Amino acid sequence: MEITINDAAKKISQNKNIAIAPHVNPDGDGLGSTLGLYHALVKSGHNVKIFVDDDIPNAFRFLPGWENFIRPEEQVDGIDLLIVLDAEPERIGRVTEVIKAPILNLDHHRSNTKTANFLYLAPERAATGEIIYLLLDNMQIELDTNIAICLYTAIATDCGFFKYSNTSSFTMQTAAKMLDYGVEPNRISEALEQKKFTDVKILPAVIDTLTLYNDGKIAIISVTKDIKENCDSTADFVEYARIIEGVDVAIVVKYSDDKVTRISMRSKYTDVASIAEKLGGGGHIRAAGCTINDDLVNARKCILAVVEAEMAAK
Amino acid sequence: MEITINDAAKKISQNKNIAIAPHVNPDGDGLGSTLGLYHALVKSGHNVKIFVDDDIPNAFRFLPGWENFIRPEEQVDGIDLLIVLDAEPERIGRVTEVIKAPILNLDHHRSNTKTANFLYLAPERAATGEIIYLLLDNMQIELDTNIAICLYTAIATDCGFFKYSNTSSFTMQTAAKMLDYGVEPNRISEALEQKKFTDVKILPAVIDTLTLYNDGKIAIISVTKDIKENCDSTADFVEYARIIEGVDVAIVVKYSDDKVTRISMRSKYTDVASIAEKLGGGGHIRAAGCTINDDLVNARKCILAVVEAEMAAK
Ligand SMILES: [Mn+2]
Ligand SMILES: [Mn+2]
Repeated sequence: MEITINDAAKKISQNKNIAIAPHVNPDGDGLGSTLGLYHALVKSGHNVKIFVDDDIPNAFRFLPGWENFIRPEEQVDGIDLLIVLDAEPERIGRVTEVIKAPILNLDHHRSNTKTANFLYLAPERAATGEIIYLLLDNMQIELDTNIAICLYTAIATDCGFFKYSNTSSFTMQTAAKMLDYGVEPNRISEALEQKKFTDVKILPAVIDTLTLYNDGKIAIISVTKDIKENCDSTADFVEYARIIEGVDVAIVVKYSDDKVTRISMRSKYTDVASIAEKLGGGGHIRAAGCTINDDLVNARKCILAVVEAEMAAK
Repeated sequence: MEITINDAAKKISQNKNIAIAPHVNPDGDGLGSTLGLYHALVKSGHNVKIFVDDDIPNAFRFLPGWENFIRPEEQVDGIDLLIVLDAEPERIGRVTEVIKAPILNLDHHRSNTKTANFLYLAPERAATGEIIYLLLDNMQIELDTNIAICLYTAIATDCGFFKYSNTSSFTMQTAAKMLDYGVEPNRISEALEQKKFTDVKILPAVIDTLTLYNDGKIAIISVTKDIKENCDSTADFVEYARIIEGVDVAIVVKYSDDKVTRISMRSKYTDVASIAEKLGGGGHIRAAGCTINDDLVNARKCILAVVEAEMAAK
């Protein structure tokens, strides 16, 4: 059932014992939104537990409170409301198995499956972090530095540090408010961008795989098993394809297993969410992903063919 | 003579024929501020000419009005006021030779030499673009999309797209206002970040030169003659040094001539402006540069020794 943000605020106020969970494979928005809401609700007298069915990537371990995340292992009783953030309940892993409580879902993905008991969905928001900001404003919970760091991180990571097309005037105004509460933007970007020396030194191998197709409108990078095993994070590799003059669709094909390849796409004009959806994945118009059950070489050919066909059809 | 922004606004209003010039080796702030002010003053009925004693880098040729820049070649008469932006009058090249008019200087560099007839200096501002925004507000000149694109570019480039420590709440609020006037932040970042395919393909050669020193607190990259001649822009190379875990000072030593090497530095903690000043250069605490009159290899040793000494002294 879709509800307003007002209703969502009321629902939270009426429940004492609350659990919050972001999606698996957690990102800055999922973790930052969860922690921002956690700090705010603890402050306003709720009992709050936060769950994530995954590891917390090292890069996010500067977020205040990250060490409070619990892995869902055994039955958790006494929860009145489970708040699912930044994805639908199907994407929070085993949290829905160990917690049996009504689900309030706050999300900004237009692909949300709408299966929660109560859903506030705002596809016009750049990040779930913006929704949490509006929610806390509605609940009249005063922000503090910890909340601000979490929400700033949530917002900044989902809009590519204010460079993606989803960045609105409201996005930047909200980020500005977080700075008023003591966020140092350079410290957050330094924490998130920092790479191991070895991760920079692997870039030559990555850039070697970069090739242009379709008159330079498509750029593909491969992350082989070898590259993947020798670096900490592959998240930024797509940038080397995306920034090339004339490239519309930038693609990274990444080894996951011998017959499993992960695809991520960024675009300037083409709707990559609909391409990803055709292959069983999803995402946003300008940033989406999917999985192809084949080896790296075949998956690379497959995604190239699909994207070329999509671009030819336009 | 230092004046207030109010006085600067009055001074401009009282003069009909105005010339504006940014510093040589023009950057996004210099060009964006000049063009933003240009569009605003033309709109409010001034005769305005814009000068720059340098080429306009390709990356900035999306700025509305960039084709109106004039190279200072011969005497220009009939100018009532020369507005110098984003540097002191000594840094605008031959513009001061061809235009003999009182100089109004608007700048945010604390290293400003204060030689202008009238100076409004605001070191607390992240960019001269912020000063132009305040000036236009003071002069009650309504913004439009063209002005907003120019000022957004000025601000965003000087604060590293809101990632540098100079990014204030005011910086982000001002950027938010520019979005209200129709700026598409993704289009601006795409225009500024786009690279030739060959410029991405040269990165392996650049990263090969990357070495850590001083327990990993200093990282140096060399831009050899060969690298420089085979790529369009070397501006981002410093990032590969800056983002490494544990690096405080990131340095790029760049071939300029057989006995001339340009140094640029970024830092997280060390004051690189004072290091650059010792070597005859200048800049901001976290981003500064200088020139060493020696070959690349010797210049690299020299700057390493100076930075190591500076860090040891702290
Ligand atoms: Mn999100
Ligand atoms: Mn500047």
